[in-house]
Amino acid sequence: MVEIFEVGPRDGLQNEKNVLSLQDRVWLIESLSQAGLHSMEVGSFVRADRVPQMAESDLLPDWLKSLQKTQLFYLVPNLKGLERAITKGVKNIAVFTAVSDSFNKNNIGMSVDESFQVIGDIVTSAKSHGIRVRGYVSTVWGCPFEGRIEATRAIPVLERMLALPIDQLSIGDTIGVAAPVGVREVLFPLLKTHGPSRLAVHFHDTRGTALANALASLELGINAFDASVGGLGGCPFAPGASGNLATEDLIYLFKEMGIETGVNYKMLCETSLELAKKMGGRALPSRALRAYQSNCASNNSWDK
Amino acid sequence: MVEIFEVGPRDGLQNEKNVLSLQDRVWLIESLSQAGLHSMEVGSFVRADRVPQMAESDLLPDWLKSLQKTQLFYLVPNLKGLERAITKGVKNIAVFTAVSDSFNKNNIGMSVDESFQVIGDIVTSAKSHGIRVRGYVSTVWGCPFEGRIEATRAIPVLERMLALPIDQLSIGDTIGVAAPVGVREVLFPLLKTHGPSRLAVHFHDTRGTALANALASLELGINAFDASVGGLGGCPFAPGASGNLATEDLIYLFKEMGIETGVNYKMLCETSLELAKKMGGRALPSRALRAYQSNCASNNSWDK
Repeated sequence: MVEIFEVGPRDGLQNEKNVLSLQDRVWLIESLSQAGLHSMEVGSFVRADRVPQMAESDLLPDWLKSLQKTQLFYLVPNLKGLERAITKGVKNIAVFTAVSDSFNKNNIGMSVDESFQVIGDIVTSAKSHGIRVRGYVSTVWGCPFEGRIEATRAIPVLERMLALPIDQLSIGDTIGVAAPVGVREVLFPLLKTHGPSRLAVHFHDTRGTALANALASLELGINAFDASVGGLGGCPFAPGASGNLATEDLIYLFKEMGIETGVNYKMLCETSLELAKKMGGRALPSRALRAYQSNCASNNSWDK
Repeated sequence: MVEIFEVGPRDGLQNEKNVLSLQDRVWLIESLSQAGLHSMEVGSFVRADRVPQMAESDLLPDWLKSLQKTQLFYLVPNLKGLERAITKGVKNIAVFTAVSDSFNKNNIGMSVDESFQVIGDIVTSAKSHGIRVRGYVSTVWGCPFEGRIEATRAIPVLERMLALPIDQLSIGDTIGVAAPVGVREVLFPLLKTHGPSRLAVHFHDTRGTALANALASLELGINAFDASVGGLGGCPFAPGASGNLATEDLIYLFKEMGIETGVNYKMLCETSLELAKKMGGRALPSRALRAYQSNCASNNSWDK
């Protein structure tokens, strides 16, 4: 059984123009949980004036109290955010950095070195409160400002994150440029040293390669995969282009390979179609979802 | 070096509503050839009243005489079509069947058995004229009418095609349902018996899995891959869904894996963008093409 880490309600929605109401966000999280997605990033303790899509995240822990089976993660950018999370009884947080300074500065206003100081303090404090921590590292294969990132440059940053007492590292192809050879180049040494238990991969489908990269990762021994419902979350650096790997596409691939995910494909797709309505009726980028919706064949045992 | 077999000018265009003029089709074929695509399906000797997109295919061989480096294939449904092809000096033809009777009857009005009688006659006559023959087998992993196709059912049909003196067999996932486990189940025994020299794979991206399937095939030893410029050719059984694997997505994957294709990525993408204009300004489905068009990053060495 592999773990599907659902990032749509935070990473996905944050990169969409539409702002979903708190009520709709709660509906989405509950529906995804019911579909079997039990690891999920749902909110962010950031300033609402900067990220309106994540406003009222403080209210989510109370609204979602009934979801006992699902690990709900909240992005925490600094110690102040962590305090807010602790006050709200949050049990799982995510911290964030990147391989490239210019992306990090553009995204969170800090160099990679500076961000690791902040992250170190957050992780220490979080662990002392019994909080699980997920660490994101972005731009592992490429940066929108600095271009290609070599494995020899990415791996030390990933190792630096793994040296902290985090529970899971999410290895991110932020602009969707990776291909299987480069994926293996990064993952193989990490797997050799650490094994798969703390490693997750986060692929973007900007150039259509996300599932090929997921396959290469799976076959190396990775068993945790980030994905976003419907493919929610475009690429902020490429207007009109796809961003996050769609959860439907990933689940479709795995179910057809006989790989257990615990996710009910039909319930997931029905949630996505309902979500598309709430997002103003736009077609979500997931290809598997469109095939599900077309429900093409008269004898169709796939889209179920 | 792997062979990219471009199917856009025939298979792609035939499944589009827009009908391109003969002049535009000639421009497309010449541009793709200049971009390095030297195996291409360009026309069809069928009745123009049935397939208006392929009208005037008889005129193509004369128009394309200068393309000496490129193998130009024409679909030939029957002996009458072959006669027209021979008259026109055609050097490469394609014949067509499927694993499932109901798809074949719907598509070409014949059962699989009946189609093999016709194909046998075409191949014999074609070879006696020194014409190269490509054999398509569709619905290898699934049929829109009959549902899942097991490998034990598909392989005998593929073997039957390989028993003919054809030069290449194209193994088709017509409705885009295959995943790597099933791909290996079909390809492994064929490769074991025949080696890769006469085998090509034809994947559809209806559920986003085409590149993962291409990767699995490549790593088994397959070195010929069908693809369609821009992802041209939707799925006639799923309105709005994607059909053919986009040539750009496949070339992007391969170039980033260091696999030689002989195709100039930039020239291919520029051709696709020009084609999109000629198709009434619609966005073609290729994800890599959209990323190329967005030309997002300030330091972008990928989309070149």
